[in-house]
Amino acid sequence: MADIQNCDLKSLNPLQLFEKVTEQGEKVRALKAGKAPKDEIDAAVRMLLSLKLSYKTTTGQDYQAGLPPRDLVSINNGTAKEEDEDFVDPWTVQTSNAKGVDYDKLIVRFGSSKIDTDLINRIERAIGQKPHRFLRRGIFFSHRDMDQVLHAYENKKSFYLYTGRGPSSQAMHVGHLIPFIFTKWLQEVFDVPLVVQLTDDEKYLWKDLTTAKAHEYAVENAKDIIACGFDINKTFIFSDLDYLGTSAGFYQNIVKVQKHVTFNQVKGIFGFTDSDCIGKISFPAIQAAPSFSSSFPQIFNGKENVQCLIPCAIDQDPYFRMTRDVAPRIGLPKPALLHSVFFPALQGAQTKMSASDPNSSIFLTDSPKQIKTKINKHAFSGGRDTIEEHRKYGGNCDVDVSFMYLTFFLEDDDRLEQLKQAYTSGELLTGELKKVLIETLQPLIAAHQERRKQVTDEMVKQFMTPRKLAFEF
Amino acid sequence: MADIQNCDLKSLNPLQLFEKVTEQGEKVRALKAGKAPKDEIDAAVRMLLSLKLSYKTTTGQDYQAGLPPRDLVSINNGTAKEEDEDFVDPWTVQTSNAKGVDYDKLIVRFGSSKIDTDLINRIERAIGQKPHRFLRRGIFFSHRDMDQVLHAYENKKSFYLYTGRGPSSQAMHVGHLIPFIFTKWLQEVFDVPLVVQLTDDEKYLWKDLTTAKAHEYAVENAKDIIACGFDINKTFIFSDLDYLGTSAGFYQNIVKVQKHVTFNQVKGIFGFTDSDCIGKISFPAIQAAPSFSSSFPQIFNGKENVQCLIPCAIDQDPYFRMTRDVAPRIGLPKPALLHSVFFPALQGAQTKMSASDPNSSIFLTDSPKQIKTKINKHAFSGGRDTIEEHRKYGGNCDVDVSFMYLTFFLEDDDRLEQLKQAYTSGELLTGELKKVLIETLQPLIAAHQERRKQVTDEMVKQFMTPRKLAFEF
Repeated sequence: MADIQNCDLKSLNPLQLFEKVTEQGEKVRALKAGKAPKDEIDAAVRMLLSLKLSYKTTTGQDYQAGLPPRDLVSINNGTAKEEDEDFVDPWTVQTSNAKGVDYDKLIVRFGSSKIDTDLINRIERAIGQKPHRFLRRGIFFSHRDMDQVLHAYENKKSFYLYTGRGPSSQAMHVGHLIPFIFTKWLQEVFDVPLVVQLTDDEKYLWKDLTTAKAHEYAVENAKDIIACGFDINKTFIFSDLDYLGTSAGFYQNIVKVQKHVTFNQVKGIFGFTDSDCIGKISFPAIQAAPSFSSSFPQIFNGKENVQCLIPCAIDQDPYFRMTRDVAPRIGLPKPALLHSVFFPALQGAQTKMSASDPNSSIFLTDSPKQIKTKINKHAFSGGRDTIEEHRKYGGNCDVDVSFMYLTFFLEDDDRLEQLKQAYTSGELLTGELKKVLIETLQPLIAAHQERRKQVTDEMVKQFMTPRKLAFEF
Repeated sequence: MADIQNCDLKSLNPLQLFEKVTEQGEKVRALKAGKAPKDEIDAAVRMLLSLKLSYKTTTGQDYQAGLPPRDLVSINNGTAKEEDEDFVDPWTVQTSNAKGVDYDKLIVRFGSSKIDTDLINRIERAIGQKPHRFLRRGIFFSHRDMDQVLHAYENKKSFYLYTGRGPSSQAMHVGHLIPFIFTKWLQEVFDVPLVVQLTDDEKYLWKDLTTAKAHEYAVENAKDIIACGFDINKTFIFSDLDYLGTSAGFYQNIVKVQKHVTFNQVKGIFGFTDSDCIGKISFPAIQAAPSFSSSFPQIFNGKENVQCLIPCAIDQDPYFRMTRDVAPRIGLPKPALLHSVFFPALQGAQTKMSASDPNSSIFLTDSPKQIKTKINKHAFSGGRDTIEEHRKYGGNCDVDVSFMYLTFFLEDDDRLEQLKQAYTSGELLTGELKKVLIETLQPLIAAHQERRKQVTDEMVKQFMTPRKLAFEF
């Protein structure tokens, strides 16, 4: 069944939406006052709730009668946000477009390069395998210097992978898995070592957490990361709060970066102010340092110039733009990057999923029933208001969250294309599409949970122990 | 023999001194033009050189004909320096007074407490020994919470000592020894553990040095520190560049301090600006962290609340004011402090000695002959212009550098008092006073050099290895 949602709402600005909600509220009150038939009142209430949800998704605020939406002012590189401009930094992703962030514009603004067919074909030739669906479908869509990594690889020069996670809570959602699923694939097809940074120090600095709690989250998250299937002989996972006190090489790279970045620069890149603590101000160097192989003397045998490749969501790029700016000034190679799009919230692609809102996400701990309920109840639909309209005009895959999720998780390209056509033509209803997603996610998450159960404390300890990996450098 | 220096020069301000130099330069030119007798010209040239030296000592700048002295503008806590106000921060010590910084005023301004006779007597009772000459003579003149340390000590509660050094070059001068000589005494009389921080990271951040060079200086300086006679079983010396990568406890305290200090605060305390690198901005937390026993889990067995006592020169106080402000907010005890005066440069008490100007200091590597020459040639004299005047009016011990040095290094109180009276009365000439200093310093430095020769690489390694000390906590 198609959702009650009206797709046209997506083109409304917050103020127009506010007026729609107010109007609908008045309509409900009038129907109730006039003792209209129950069916009619119920339909009007459903529409009101749906409008309120759209309002919240668009503005990030609950609708409050009589209180029009505040201007959404954000700061990016010191300038006020332009009308209709997406806003992306490591803490905030904001767009007014229901399709999500305009990634082509982001490539231009960030000065990165598009992952085009040529590059994907070159990767395919290099590894002799079909590229991952995240590459085929533009989920990893942007890069920096991936061509150089491939050139070196084609000439038998290896590299290493670096990715990470800010462990802000025990619960990870499916969106958090995207970089890890992709990184695991990269590790397999290129056969390279991987380091995974858990920035428990960052979470301590930014959140109301003790260091002990932040570290506990890091260890819990490590279990989910390990459950992605990384090779224990080729992967080093570290908590900053631990590893900084274990590797002089790591601290020395941090202090080198810290010497070459001014407060003015981090102010420009990250929007820090004079009231921010000095821990936040110097933190970007801690996320930068694992880009240099000398931060891991135990893995790289002291070698300073092993090329680093960082798969991450595009919102982490500011850290690595800074890193790439500093690298030549401290005589070290620039890391290369592969950027992913954001994983949309169930409520729509306007924001990233949030680990703190249980209904915005499918969590890795959700039961099959919870998965089903969440998708049925919260996954924003690109379908039409009524079955009749849906059959006649078809659904909109560009804004349909269930379809978006399937692009992330359904491996079969042909099936995905069939679903798209059937949904767009109106042949497939929203409820049917959701069913496909539920049936795709349930076994994936159950399998993850099964693998996670098998992650022993001993394994976590081994993954997190600084040690030599199964590579010679 | 009394020096050529005219004591009254000390009361002149920079502009008046500038005019004196200009006047004397014209006099020399006139004498030469008039083909005056060689003796007369030589005397005038000597006076000119002496005036130029006074000018440089007072202004920190070389005299340049036609270029009057620039206003000496410095920033302290965001406000411009007041006329005649001493300026003291960890990088600059400036006073226009030949007697040196006004320490009583500094106590008021910094909000510390004077080390008075009561406190010295209480220390004597606690340790059952005569207090060190640095205490008897007001060289350690100010404190924070020393009474609490004593109260706890009297009740059988121990503490630990923390001091440090910024290793900016291989060469240390006698002034650098002051905190170490005193700390060694404290370690002996109280029988407590000691940690010594070598801030090679700070020197890397502030100077044009590689991390390797800064670390090399740290190891070289450790040898001079060890040569002061510290007990290898009770002393841990560490380089930040090494130790930060060896102790998770240390980094965790650093990040805790960094969370609780804003850029606004370090701007106010240390005068940092937006153009400073983020390494400098976050460094104060690295000097703060050794004030907490949990930074040394190997020594204190994980105990978090062992009281710390920091003997240091008063210019380091801003770091520890900040530390004491943060401590209760992270649930840790405030460190107590003992502050020393500055060790004067040979040229006078207006500035600290500088390791980068070989003639401003007696170095620990100087030969007996170099010591003799430096003192005879450069030690600023409080004596009169001529022997006759000196016999008649007497010398001024308040500004005489040889006498000041003797207060630091001559152990015998009676002898020091005799010298003072004889010099003040005019009975003792400058040359004779200098001879006493030379004969005091030569054996002290020779003995230091002898002990330093006996410091093996193995000993340095042991002192610098994180380990349990000979104490139970």
